[in-house]
This record gives sequence, structure tokens and C-alpha cells, in this order.
Amino acid sequence: MSRLDAALASIGGLDQDAMAAARARQDRLTKPRGALGRLEELSVQLAGITGRVTPSLERKAVVVMAADHGVAQQGISAYPQEVTAQMVANFLGGGAAINVLARQAGARVVVVDAGVAADLPSHPLLVSRKVARGTADFTLGPAMSRQEAHQSIQVGLEVVEDLISQGLDLMATGDMGIGNTTASSALVAAFTGQPPAAVTGRGTGIGQAAWERKVEVVSHGLARHKVDPGDPIDVLARLGGLEIGGLAGVMLGAAAHRVPVVIDGFISGAAALVVVALCPRVKEYLIASHRSAEPGHAAALQGLGLKPLLDLDLRLGEGTGAVLAFPLLEAAVRLLAEMATFADAGVSTALDDALSLSKGEEG
Amino acid sequence: MSRLDAALASIGGLDQDAMAAARARQDRLTKPRGALGRLEELSVQLAGITGRVTPSLERKAVVVMAADHGVAQQGISAYPQEVTAQMVANFLGGGAAINVLARQAGARVVVVDAGVAADLPSHPLLVSRKVARGTADFTLGPAMSRQEAHQSIQVGLEVVEDLISQGLDLMATGDMGIGNTTASSALVAAFTGQPPAAVTGRGTGIGQAAWERKVEVVSHGLARHKVDPGDPIDVLARLGGLEIGGLAGVMLGAAAHRVPVVIDGFISGAAALVVVALCPRVKEYLIASHRSAEPGHAAALQGLGLKPLLDLDLRLGEGTGAVLAFPLLEAAVRLLAEMATFADAGVSTALDDALSLSKGEEG
Repeated sequence: MSRLDAALASIGGLDQDAMAAARARQDRLTKPRGALGRLEELSVQLAGITGRVTPSLERKAVVVMAADHGVAQQGISAYPQEVTAQMVANFLGGGAAINVLARQAGARVVVVDAGVAADLPSHPLLVSRKVARGTADFTLGPAMSRQEAHQSIQVGLEVVEDLISQGLDLMATGDMGIGNTTASSALVAAFTGQPPAAVTGRGTGIGQAAWERKVEVVSHGLARHKVDPGDPIDVLARLGGLEIGGLAGVMLGAAAHRVPVVIDGFISGAAALVVVALCPRVKEYLIASHRSAEPGHAAALQGLGLKPLLDLDLRLGEGTGAVLAFPLLEAAVRLLAEMATFADAGVSTALDDALSLSKGEEG
Repeated sequence: MSRLDAALASIGGLDQDAMAAARARQDRLTKPRGALGRLEELSVQLAGITGRVTPSLERKAVVVMAADHGVAQQGISAYPQEVTAQMVANFLGGGAAINVLARQAGARVVVVDAGVAADLPSHPLLVSRKVARGTADFTLGPAMSRQEAHQSIQVGLEVVEDLISQGLDLMATGDMGIGNTTASSALVAAFTGQPPAAVTGRGTGIGQAAWERKVEVVSHGLARHKVDPGDPIDVLARLGGLEIGGLAGVMLGAAAHRVPVVIDGFISGAAALVVVALCPRVKEYLIASHRSAEPGHAAALQGLGLKPLLDLDLRLGEGTGAVLAFPLLEAAVRLLAEMATFADAGVSTALDDALSLSKGEEG
């Protein structure tokens, strides 16, 4: 059994007892029932994932998967391909947005070369797991072989398992790869059935003419490969990217080890569609951090059945939206752990009575 | 000149030079222009408020104004009036949701008795500034006198000026008061012209019959008082609450001293409508933290022209939504302060060129 098959086989459902205990505790806290809205739901999900009513979220990491895309030669990005490697260097130097946000959140940044089309100097903070020097141009043939697609997922699995063996309570996914919004648009169209124009955006900030070209490129890829969403590895191989496979592997590994995984924007959403197609149960372990400004992201989230926590017009990637959501998860758990119950606070039974009354009235 | 008039007279516009410098720095950071979305706008607003491009947001406080409402006797809440005082005790004991979130955010909680209808024991953390033992029932007459309305605003002004004299970089508004969603619905209807049913919600969680009664109570108050939104002190006096006046004073004082003020949900939104009617410029100093589950809050935000940062179905008050947004403000400033510029990172001019190109294409 491959490591991928083993991970897939080991993914169980959420812990129903822990979820019931979290719900019961929420209803004893000094607030009207349900008044903490989505933070209450989040606390219940986190209990179900971890099996603990109030899990620790102390040890945090964001995995930034980097890779290049053959389709970048079609002129679909405002940036030349070299920028992927340059931004990896920026991550390692601590100067990128994700570094700043991770410092604020107390999270490690783990940068993985899953397929950058350049020789990267070795660096203590860089995990070198290059599957290939970028993918091939999917308008001319498959982006990668089925074997490479498998391997990219394997990279993610191994990276997350290493992190977990060192101790990890919460993780986030991030990406870097010039051209990867084009690959993601193709994947989202393939998995959701949405037309290319509806799921293709401006990426790093292209103009109207380049956007029209990008829609054409996505349409051409879809027409050429006629993929079957029932074979997600094939979809990933033909249209995807090495960092996207890597992120799918990260999500799979996190779910297999019951570590909550906060997914970033459009690229992570495309990776989530791949992994959820492989194993629908993974969805329960995913927390959607934000809705990206990329139009295809809303379609991806809808396809996944996930509701984002933030909506701040971000379109940077790197895991920035995911790490921004960390404090909300921590708040959800801390509220459940630290708020006084009616009994603790000596808040009179009037409050309890009022709640029962209100519950009765609504029934 | 009263303290209120002095504060109103001292409110100037945002610092345009600091805003221009913040914008210019955003465009030199290693990211596509605009890719940090609303965090970029926030950083520019914070620069304009404080006059510093990357202000410190180290010293933080949330002011929780508490008061009672005569209209509570109309049976419009799921809770008896005693709960206001009981929750104040919970705030002082550190067991309420706002205490948990403020600990996480590193913010002080300042609890102010602006008009609780009970004798509260003195406590080192309680600021006792009771204007009256609750308001009168606005269905029977004005909630308070014009003099009391003035005094409630004065309380907020003085509380925030005390905090500022001790050192304060960022503040949040919060509320506690059984019946205060009813008063806020009346205020929001008065200032926005929306019909009562559109701006009246379930508050702490009332059922359909109680909701219908609540809409009737709001309609009755509006019909009885026929307020003129051009005289905001009169509107506050007839329909408002002592904590709502207090929060209006907090916002005014923060704006007068160029301290950014993050406003919480529905009650803070009603207070903001009062203060912005007194002095439209105050709006530029306000940051809307979240959109509450209370339907009238969206109308208040629209009336204010503010866009909330979070939308998490919260409906607890206390300042919980406002303090939850603190990390987003801190992220906005840290990103601007700490991210590498193209030059710093040695990211090639290709990136700069690509940006100029992309800008050209869009033009």
C-alpha cells in the first residue's frame, strides 16, 4: 500500500463525542445561545477534528509550496517565471507578507520547493523536494505525468508528517508559483463544471487583453484534455501544478493525523477540490480562511461546501489569508475554554430561565 | 465652551501626507499592487488617523459601557433587567466573552456604569459614572432629558480622555444593557429612515411573538416622538440609552485625540449614527469591525458608509466583534512596516517592470 493509499485509508470521521461535549459547554457559557455565531461552530469543528473539547493551538505552521508552470509561457501572468524563485528567496529572507503574518501569529513558515524551474541554493529553511523543473504547458500536452502528480501529493504528505512528528497543533496552506491561477482556474472549471470565463480572474493584476487570453488558454486546456473529475489524479496531472499536488498532500496528511488545516485562497481551494475528490471526508478537516478576490475561488468554495471566515479582497496567496484567520480559531477555542458558565459566574438562574424561555418561544 | 463643544471643534481631517506616504510604501512592497486588499486600505486609514505611516498599536483598550433601559418593561428582551448588573459583575470577574478576547488581544477592559438600574458594589476595575438608574420607557415619554443625553456623551468623552492620558494607541467600543437592541432599532430607524420591521431583530434570541411586540414598541416610540435627525442630541434623549450616549462620547473623544476606534456591532453602530450626525468627520476615525446578525446593523453601517471587516454572525455585543478585529489592524500596520520592498529583497526589477507593465495594461 502506498503512503497515499495508507493516508486515505486512515481518515476517519470527526469525533462526535467531543463535538457534543463542545456544544453542551457552549450552551452553559454566560451568553445567549448561539450569540458567538460562527466561532461556536468553529469550536465544535475543532473539537471534532482533534478529539479534544478545547484543544491546544499553540504549535502552528504554514506550509508554502512553490512550483513553476509551463503554461506561464502563454503570457497569462503579469510576472515573468523568474519571480517564483525570487519570491522563494524573499520567504527565506523573512521579508514577504507571509513571514510578517506568521511572526504575528506565532507560526513557523515552511517553504517547500515542489517544482521550481530554477536551481535554488540550499538553505536551512528550505525543504527541497523538487518533483520536476516546473510543469509542462497544458495547452500542448499534460502538465505532468500521472507518476509526477502522485509524487507531488506524496511530497505534501511527507512534509506534513515531518512537521507533525515534531509537534503541530494547527496548520495553514500557502502557495507560490507564477501561472498558478491559470492552472487553478482549469482545475476549478474541471471539478465544478463552471465555464472558464466565470472562474478565471486577473491573478497578479493583468489587463483585459491578457485576461481574455487567459480564458482562452484555460478553455483550450479543458477542450484538449477532456478530463474526468472522477479521476482526480488524472485531472491534477493534466491541468494542475506541482505545488497544487503538494498542497493536496498536506491537506490529506493533516486530516489523517487529525490536525486542523486552514486553507488559503484560490490555489489552496483548487488543491482542496483535488483531495476532496480523492476522499470526501477530508472536507471535514478543512477550514476555509477567506474568500479571495479571484472569482473562481467562490466557485471552488461552493464546490467544497465551505464558508470562508474572512472576505478582505486579498489575492496574494502565500498562505496570507489562512494565517490571518488563525486568531479567530484561537478565539473560538479560548472562549470555550475560558468563559465563565452560568454556575461559575453566579449569574442568576434568571439568565438560565430566560434562555430556556427564549428557547421555548422559538420552538 | 462645553467639553463636548471643545471636542467637536478640535476634530480635524485625516493626515493626507501620512496617507500618501503609506500608499507609496504599499506600492514598493514585494507583492502585486493591491493584493493585500482591505488591509492596504486599513493601513492608509490608520496612517491618516494617527499621522504616522506605521503607528504603534501596542496599548489597546475596550470600553464596555453599561446601562439599563426603561423600555425593557415592555417585554422586548429574553432577559430580565437584572442581567445587566449580573453581566457587569461577570466583566469585573473576568469571565465574560469580552474578557477572554481582550486577554488574547492584549487589551484592557474598561467597564463603565453609565446608568445601570442597580447599586453596583465599588470595584477597582469599574468606572462609576451613573447618569441615572436606567432610562425611562420611551413608549411613555422621552427616555431621558436633553441634559442627561449631554451628560452621557460627556461620560464617554471623559473616560476616553482619561485612558488617552495614560497612553492609548487603539480602542474598541462595547456595550451591555438589557433592552438596548430596542433602543438601537429606534435610533437606526430615526437616522436612516428605514421602517422599524427592517431594523428590528431578535436581540438576545426572542421568538416570533416577542419580535412582533418589539417592532410595535419601536414603531410606537417613533410615532410618539417624531424626532428630527438634524437634532441628534434630541434623538438620543428621546429614544436612546445612557450607554449609547457614552459610546458616542468615546468615539468623539477618540477622534478628537486621533486615536483609531474600532466599533463593535449594532449598539455601537447606533451610537456612531448619533456622533456622525453631530460631526460627520468623526466617521473617518471609525473602523467597523463586523456585521452583526442583527438586521438593523447593516442599515446602520450603510448609513455610516462603513464596510465591516468581519461577518461571523456574532450578536453578543460587549465589544467582542471589535476586539476580534484588532489582529487585522495590527496585521495591516505590521505588513506595511515589516515587508521587504523590491529594493530590500533584491527581487529583480523584472518584478517592478512587470508591475509597471501591468499598470500600463490596465490604464
